[in-house]
Amino acid sequence: MKQIEISEVGPRDGLQSIASIMATEDKKRWIASMAAAGIREIEVGSFVPAKVLPQLADTAEIVRYARTIPGLTVAVLVPNLRGAQDALKAGAHKLTIPLSVSETHSLKNLRRTHEQVMEEVRGIRELLNQLPENERPSFEGSLSTCFGCTLEGPVSEEAVLRLGESLLKAGCDEVGLSDTTGYANPAQVRRLIRLIWENLGRDALNGIHLHNTRGQGLANVLAAVDEGITTVDSSMGGIGGCPFAPGASGNIVTEDLVFLLEAMGYSTGVDMSKLMEARKILAAALPDEPLYGFIPDAGLPKGFQYAGSESPVLA
Amino acid sequence: MKQIEISEVGPRDGLQSIASIMATEDKKRWIASMAAAGIREIEVGSFVPAKVLPQLADTAEIVRYARTIPGLTVAVLVPNLRGAQDALKAGAHKLTIPLSVSETHSLKNLRRTHEQVMEEVRGIRELLNQLPENERPSFEGSLSTCFGCTLEGPVSEEAVLRLGESLLKAGCDEVGLSDTTGYANPAQVRRLIRLIWENLGRDALNGIHLHNTRGQGLANVLAAVDEGITTVDSSMGGIGGCPFAPGASGNIVTEDLVFLLEAMGYSTGVDMSKLMEARKILAAALPDEPLYGFIPDAGLPKGFQYAGSESPVLA
Repeated sequence: MKQIEISEVGPRDGLQSIASIMATEDKKRWIASMAAAGIREIEVGSFVPAKVLPQLADTAEIVRYARTIPGLTVAVLVPNLRGAQDALKAGAHKLTIPLSVSETHSLKNLRRTHEQVMEEVRGIRELLNQLPENERPSFEGSLSTCFGCTLEGPVSEEAVLRLGESLLKAGCDEVGLSDTTGYANPAQVRRLIRLIWENLGRDALNGIHLHNTRGQGLANVLAAVDEGITTVDSSMGGIGGCPFAPGASGNIVTEDLVFLLEAMGYSTGVDMSKLMEARKILAAALPDEPLYGFIPDAGLPKGFQYAGSESPVLA
Repeated sequence: MKQIEISEVGPRDGLQSIASIMATEDKKRWIASMAAAGIREIEVGSFVPAKVLPQLADTAEIVRYARTIPGLTVAVLVPNLRGAQDALKAGAHKLTIPLSVSETHSLKNLRRTHEQVMEEVRGIRELLNQLPENERPSFEGSLSTCFGCTLEGPVSEEAVLRLGESLLKAGCDEVGLSDTTGYANPAQVRRLIRLIWENLGRDALNGIHLHNTRGQGLANVLAAVDEGITTVDSSMGGIGGCPFAPGASGNIVTEDLVFLLEAMGYSTGVDMSKLMEARKILAAALPDEPLYGFIPDAGLPKGFQYAGSESPVLA
């Protein structure tokens, strides 16, 4: 049975995009409940200055806490070397640095040119290499706006490939594809995955981050897992998006993604009823934020079976 | 360039599921505006007794009107021979009779056993055969609940095949797959399409009717068009569903479907800005009903091009 990793990005991509600031203790409870539901990777925060994203000011504490949860991969976003230093200090298992393929978006989002981001990547690689190999976090370069940009419009696939290659050369272990703006369509998802794999090797790309801004999120997931992508980002309740891309909002809903994958026979390790308990914790912690998703309202189909299971959840 | 037909079912599946009754003149305006936006097939109503579905009591008049719109295929639902007689009188181009693969649902929805539905199919075929061949409407048997039933749970794929074969033998020109309950997943969509095509021939199945009850609608569409399905049902604003299947609601949103298909390079013939004009007419005619869809809020991506076009809609 094929496994797909769901990488929950709600505590980072979700919380950074909303006005409410979730209390640190609530974050811990929420993260623990998602891990208890079977989520094996959670992006718990971002090491950016607190004045830029006060919602994530407690990221170091959250990382330290999340590391105590057995079996959980604790991922964080780091915009630069400084962030990576903080991430290492806190003990993150996985660092992701975003590089916006649209340089206009890069300047607006990270206030850096492509070359400046590459410089940070090289610095982070040097830093990581100082650690013993078994203590080194994995390091991903996320190709954001790679399916199109709200500022520049269409993004050249050749540019995505070229920047992906540069990220690997500068020191990332792998790249990820990120539909920051919700522009992706399934044909494009397939083309980009194939382009990267054919040119940079199969190990160069394992994960994809898709938004549901135009309702295409799960169709794009299908295209990606059909191709062989093994890690899919999503956000509980669909909270979040990218606050710097005007009009872009709405992550893929974790609850609906679990159903898609399990119903198709991909094991995610997630238990839906425990996931609903985690959603209650999220709802209580963010009483002013709308939560999205179809499965929470519609429920699982009668007779639904998890991938590989032979007994129905609901008789 | 591959073409996909969007069969708009809002005036039937949508209007039958909501409490509001749309005025006949509003229906005409709405249907005309969708045809003007490029929709080439519209299911305009259902020939059921007015006391069962008062929302559709004006179907005969709507059919007569819709026939005057050049190039439009006017489709209707007919539950039985009596409905088919009315449909022929009014001049419908396409008749669809639903057969629920779940017999429990069939009894509840149509108050008929499978054999009783087959009897109606045979009667309708006899009626159609009395017409000169060039005046004969096409006649589809829709395999509803074929992806699972809210009452019975899982539905056997063997039963779907067997009933599809029976429908063709009894006189349908083709069968359609219908996810009445919003249970379908993409793997199942692929399996059922292949099963039908391998056993009953490629001409036996062209269209699919999917719901978005669990948020999987467009992912299921992707699976279907990947396989080679050429007609996809959807509903403007996502209105509707099946009022007799508890908990089932929510058609695929036409607006989002057009984006999916055109962005992937499938031509639908639909112009999005004209479709938004039609949506305004719908919203004005049903002020108390919520309309769904992501594209109406998010808009088309910057630089979006229709399938086969070389100039962007939005620069």
